[in-house]
Amino acid sequence: MRPDYMALALEEARGAAARGEVPVGAVLVDRASGKVIAAAGNAVEESADPTAHAEILVLRRAAAARGRPRLDGCELHVTLEPCAMCAAAIALARVDRVVYGAPDPKMGGVAHGARVFDQPTCHHRPEIVAGVRESEAAEMLRAFFRARR
Amino acid sequence: MRPDYMALALEEARGAAARGEVPVGAVLVDRASGKVIAAAGNAVEESADPTAHAEILVLRRAAAARGRPRLDGCELHVTLEPCAMCAAAIALARVDRVVYGAPDPKMGGVAHGARVFDQPTCHHRPEIVAGVRESEAAEMLRAFFRARR
Repeated sequence: MRPDYMALALEEARGAAARGEVPVGAVLVDRASGKVIAAAGNAVEESADPTAHAEILVLRRAAAARGRPRLDGCELHVTLEPCAMCAAAIALARVDRVVYGAPDPKMGGVAHGARVFDQPTCHHRPEIVAGVRESEAAEMLRAFFRARR
Repeated sequence: MRPDYMALALEEARGAAARGEVPVGAVLVDRASGKVIAAAGNAVEESADPTAHAEILVLRRAAAARGRPRLDGCELHVTLEPCAMCAAAIALARVDRVVYGAPDPKMGGVAHGARVFDQPTCHHRPEIVAGVRESEAAEMLRAFFRARR
């Protein structure tokens, strides 16, 4: 049976919240073996790195593990719609498939705003699956921001 | 006298080409002191990192040097129009100003395609200066791809 990758991503998001980071989590999976190559939660504040979104962290770690910058044959599971930075990085890495949870009308770059994959300047369009365990991911973000207000 | 930051970025691009990387270079400058905080050339292949564009490298290094993920008070000089990934990272890092060389109709995300800074999902728009030493940057890219064909 295939593991519940979104459950793992949600676990990473919870871990991020516990560290005071915006709760977004991601896992990168090798499609042939079903193995998780990398898992991460958002780490922008703790690592003082504006690019340390969960998606970027798993792309970088998985590419390092593979020893090459392209991640064909992989799929990404992430709790929130990727922003334009992450969507463009996913295209550059040639990830096959992206499964995400909650939509992000404020910052998203897949179904909102820059719509990175729909542009003629995007040279790889992954398969997209949206809305997987959407309400859990969205509720975690709402609770995080509610507590900070 | 202010140093010629684009000359430094072009030097980084030349270094990238010498390492077999697409020749793009960037420097990040603290505007108050005029000091270069970070300089880098594209390193996607050698570091097996799909996100290792020159812009991302200088943002990450400068933020690490500052110990925080936001780079207000800084300006970025880069030889080529940033792609959507880099443009969105620049916005996330709250860089004040971006000076770039050649336009990039094929992959650019500032004046082409995703036009990241013009989207309602972009919450920080830097000042943009385009076309600085454009022909040198463009010629370096053309020579690189000509030699690889």
